[in-house]
Amino acid sequence: MKVVIIGGVAGGASAAARLRRLDEQAQIVLLERGEYISFANCGLPYYIGGEIRDPSALTLQTPESFHARFHIDVRVNSEAVAIDPAAKTVQVRNAATGETYQETYDKLILSPGARPVVPPIEGLPNGRIFTLRTIPDTLEIKAYIQKRRPKTAVVIGGGYIGVEMAENLTKEGVSVTIVERIDHLIGPLDYDMACDVHRYLREQGIRVLLKEELKAVRKEGETLILTLTGGEIEADMAILSVGVTPDTDLAKKAGIAVNQRGCIVVNEQMQTSFKDIYAVGDAVQITDFVTEKKGYVPLAGPANRQGRIAADHICNRESAYHGTQGSSILKVFDMTVACTGLNEHTARTLGIPYEKVFTYSPSHAGYYPGGKNMSIKTLYAPRTGRILGAQIVGFDGVDKRCDVLATAIRSKLTAFDLTELELCYAPPFSSAKDPVNMVGFVIENTLAGLVKNFHWHDVASLPRDGSVTLLDVRTQAERAKGHIEGFVHIPLDELRDRLSEVPAGKPVFVHCHSGLRSYLACRILSGNGYDCYNLSGGYRLYESVTKDRAVEDYPCYERPIQPLGTVR
Amino acid sequence: MKVVIIGGVAGGASAAARLRRLDEQAQIVLLERGEYISFANCGLPYYIGGEIRDPSALTLQTPESFHARFHIDVRVNSEAVAIDPAAKTVQVRNAATGETYQETYDKLILSPGARPVVPPIEGLPNGRIFTLRTIPDTLEIKAYIQKRRPKTAVVIGGGYIGVEMAENLTKEGVSVTIVERIDHLIGPLDYDMACDVHRYLREQGIRVLLKEELKAVRKEGETLILTLTGGEIEADMAILSVGVTPDTDLAKKAGIAVNQRGCIVVNEQMQTSFKDIYAVGDAVQITDFVTEKKGYVPLAGPANRQGRIAADHICNRESAYHGTQGSSILKVFDMTVACTGLNEHTARTLGIPYEKVFTYSPSHAGYYPGGKNMSIKTLYAPRTGRILGAQIVGFDGVDKRCDVLATAIRSKLTAFDLTELELCYAPPFSSAKDPVNMVGFVIENTLAGLVKNFHWHDVASLPRDGSVTLLDVRTQAERAKGHIEGFVHIPLDELRDRLSEVPAGKPVFVHCHSGLRSYLACRILSGNGYDCYNLSGGYRLYESVTKDRAVEDYPCYERPIQPLGTVR
Repeated sequence: MKVVIIGGVAGGASAAARLRRLDEQAQIVLLERGEYISFANCGLPYYIGGEIRDPSALTLQTPESFHARFHIDVRVNSEAVAIDPAAKTVQVRNAATGETYQETYDKLILSPGARPVVPPIEGLPNGRIFTLRTIPDTLEIKAYIQKRRPKTAVVIGGGYIGVEMAENLTKEGVSVTIVERIDHLIGPLDYDMACDVHRYLREQGIRVLLKEELKAVRKEGETLILTLTGGEIEADMAILSVGVTPDTDLAKKAGIAVNQRGCIVVNEQMQTSFKDIYAVGDAVQITDFVTEKKGYVPLAGPANRQGRIAADHICNRESAYHGTQGSSILKVFDMTVACTGLNEHTARTLGIPYEKVFTYSPSHAGYYPGGKNMSIKTLYAPRTGRILGAQIVGFDGVDKRCDVLATAIRSKLTAFDLTELELCYAPPFSSAKDPVNMVGFVIENTLAGLVKNFHWHDVASLPRDGSVTLLDVRTQAERAKGHIEGFVHIPLDELRDRLSEVPAGKPVFVHCHSGLRSYLACRILSGNGYDCYNLSGGYRLYESVTKDRAVEDYPCYERPIQPLGTVR
Repeated sequence: MKVVIIGGVAGGASAAARLRRLDEQAQIVLLERGEYISFANCGLPYYIGGEIRDPSALTLQTPESFHARFHIDVRVNSEAVAIDPAAKTVQVRNAATGETYQETYDKLILSPGARPVVPPIEGLPNGRIFTLRTIPDTLEIKAYIQKRRPKTAVVIGGGYIGVEMAENLTKEGVSVTIVERIDHLIGPLDYDMACDVHRYLREQGIRVLLKEELKAVRKEGETLILTLTGGEIEADMAILSVGVTPDTDLAKKAGIAVNQRGCIVVNEQMQTSFKDIYAVGDAVQITDFVTEKKGYVPLAGPANRQGRIAADHICNRESAYHGTQGSSILKVFDMTVACTGLNEHTARTLGIPYEKVFTYSPSHAGYYPGGKNMSIKTLYAPRTGRILGAQIVGFDGVDKRCDVLATAIRSKLTAFDLTELELCYAPPFSSAKDPVNMVGFVIENTLAGLVKNFHWHDVASLPRDGSVTLLDVRTQAERAKGHIEGFVHIPLDELRDRLSEVPAGKPVFVHCHSGLRSYLACRILSGNGYDCYNLSGGYRLYESVTKDRAVEDYPCYERPIQPLGTVR
């Protein structure tokens, strides 16, 4: 059997290695148009920031080491330029010599990956504006920084790569501005969960401009001038990280079915519309594990797994890819941001029924030093309580809770199941009730009718005409630091004694700092006949979100061409 | 409704708070024989070591704060001395005044906890030998250390508390010896997983004596002399941490059913043999979630959950406790040790069919700095691949993988499911194939017949008569540091070219450092017609276990009364 693999990173390299492990006799040809195979795509920003010092660390396998270990015919600088599915041949161009030749195959695996989106903008491409996808990209950026010592940089696009680059450029002493088209960074997060990230990045000295799009670029002397929706900003360099697009021109040309977005359509065995041609990784359409809709989620973990599955199927082993749930994570300075499953934006867009809760839990027992709170947003199915998605922003221990919730989602667990998870507890690691258990308890209480929630976005529209009671049960000291207009103040521990101050027969909307004490207040009030509602996520979340929208939080532009008021 | 709760820590305090949240009108009386309620039992060693500085941090609630928040009648220094289940009364003794009085109840919850085992040994009790269970215990030990500045301490019993105390005493500048009766520390670990812990503790300067039992204690002047099975040792102080026993004399006296071990027998709603009397926490018999056998697993997480469930049931809410799986974790210096589910010792004892694999995986991507390997032992059901238990020893990220595996066990996932878990990957947190995915892959390969494993304990009995081939496929540099007698050496990357050196028609037993390259070697050999076997866990594990048993690794006794050779 002869298998040709196009693309030697993640999915392609995984497929090649698995093929060899399954079939010592197969002829395996790995074609890579670049110079490197199996490189650490996700590590590239950290080489630029100096966290990873040795560039050779970025290459997990060399063509030589891969051949020595797996007996694979690795051909770098070799681009597949045409596929003939009928004849089962690939035309290959040697980049060094320019020659082309034909390679036959029994099975073909496409792992072409994705390429950075470069929008059609006046002034692009530009030698000062870089994309980051490959090792040559990385070396180019690093060399530029070392030679030119830029003082300022603009990162266009605030997704994972953009934010990682912002951190790493900051660590290189560069003053960074992130420009993001939508109202928040980190697309897989909902807006309300991203606000903590915005504030934290600003505390690290990074300027965050939201709802700003790049319109044009020009150079004035040595200075790059970027025209945004709301003004112009200057920089010494820029990173363009507005997303990636599947690199599937070759597949399309060969008549392989792709969807509207250009993703290769595959079945659960990763077969394309031609049964002897497989496709894996950042070029393929996936099925969302939670929504069961088709989508595009380019991630390293799924790419590796798909490569393995394609190899399994080629070697007649039962294996199937059951969809992607979008588990992803970001370290930015000391902060960790992680998501898995469905977010609210997608649920609304697709019209999927959901409820949500916000919880705020310590990473480990409060009495053991070093713990920090994490903010968790969990989506669940209204009646069954099945966990649909989670987003977590915090510091230590965020990755753990997101992985547990990812496992719960994969296992189709409900909130009731989360309350029963027996996770490892010792003071340095968790609390006797882990943050994940707490998510379960809060949803269970909601489904059981013990508490009714309202949310930060409901606060503005609550009547201030006396028809309802708005109640803040925090301490005096907390209240003094800021409060929501219209909320009267009775600290929780005084509530039982001051119940007469809460008008009977009117609904009560209660908040505290995080949502826990206001839940207790709701239970006291319910026990005394009140109809009451708890602000999920509390004042903490409300403040995080509403402060983020405040105009005064935005830095000034150097060259305003529109009044600042238009920038939100 | 009037509920009386006996015992104000973990389970009792949880039950009280949940009861109040469910019923604002209930009369709730919390009786605690000690001075403190809801204290941080698991944090006590860290106060002694100075990690937790403020003793008030150890008290999560005071009687006053608990009353203010939950309107609970908290009575400290109040010991329940008799229960009359027929009359539904409790007799209470006020420790301050010595007076007793009767309290009626509609529902009674017992949360008496457990007390440290003090074996019947000559010379005990002794003012220099401390147990650690309560805040007074802790303050006493701390005061002793501050006043007497002991130079040496012996910790009798190497379970969680013992090892945590060993760490914390070391941090206080005390030279520590741990004495353990069985062949390894940390009971829930199997011997083969504990060996890394032994070595690490010794590297931290702690002396570890195994298979040694305390036989007698005496004082010579200011010196404590402890007679062990194999010799005598001296110390300035000792900690006795040989386990706990359910504190159920009161329950027994009242005719409440207990098992042979003295644990209170409860149903899934935490009801005892009297339906109006509930019991929770470290005093009750639990059902093992994996084996479904009855057992005793005193842990804080289950105690809290049981308290909640008892309260739910009293308030007519559906709620059930579905068993304990023994998820537990230990920080010792920078090392983390975690377990969940079934271990091999228990599986063998109960005759439960199982298979096992050892894996060795980096905490995060190798190219990102700071990663360390963790050693994982996973037990699974032979045919189905259902995950039965896991033990992990390592550093960063051990807690995360154990919690994911605990969730997998709770969800009754198989190894096939583990391969599909989509966990969060970015270089600082994991690899594209997480250690948990790797466990799944290795078991999947085994169940699929791609590899057959052998284990460290099989090595000694492998024939050295030429009837089988013993093969070491590590590099020359690794080989030079140590090898297993009788294994011939062909580095993996030379194996295909040197196949003629491997006799045909004979089984081949292969090892490398961790088990990964030897798996690749097995695939090469299988593909060439050999019958071969892979050493699970590799030379690393073999060396860890066999070195641990070596006599030369043991420190000398000060006063040998038996030849050293008898000490294993």
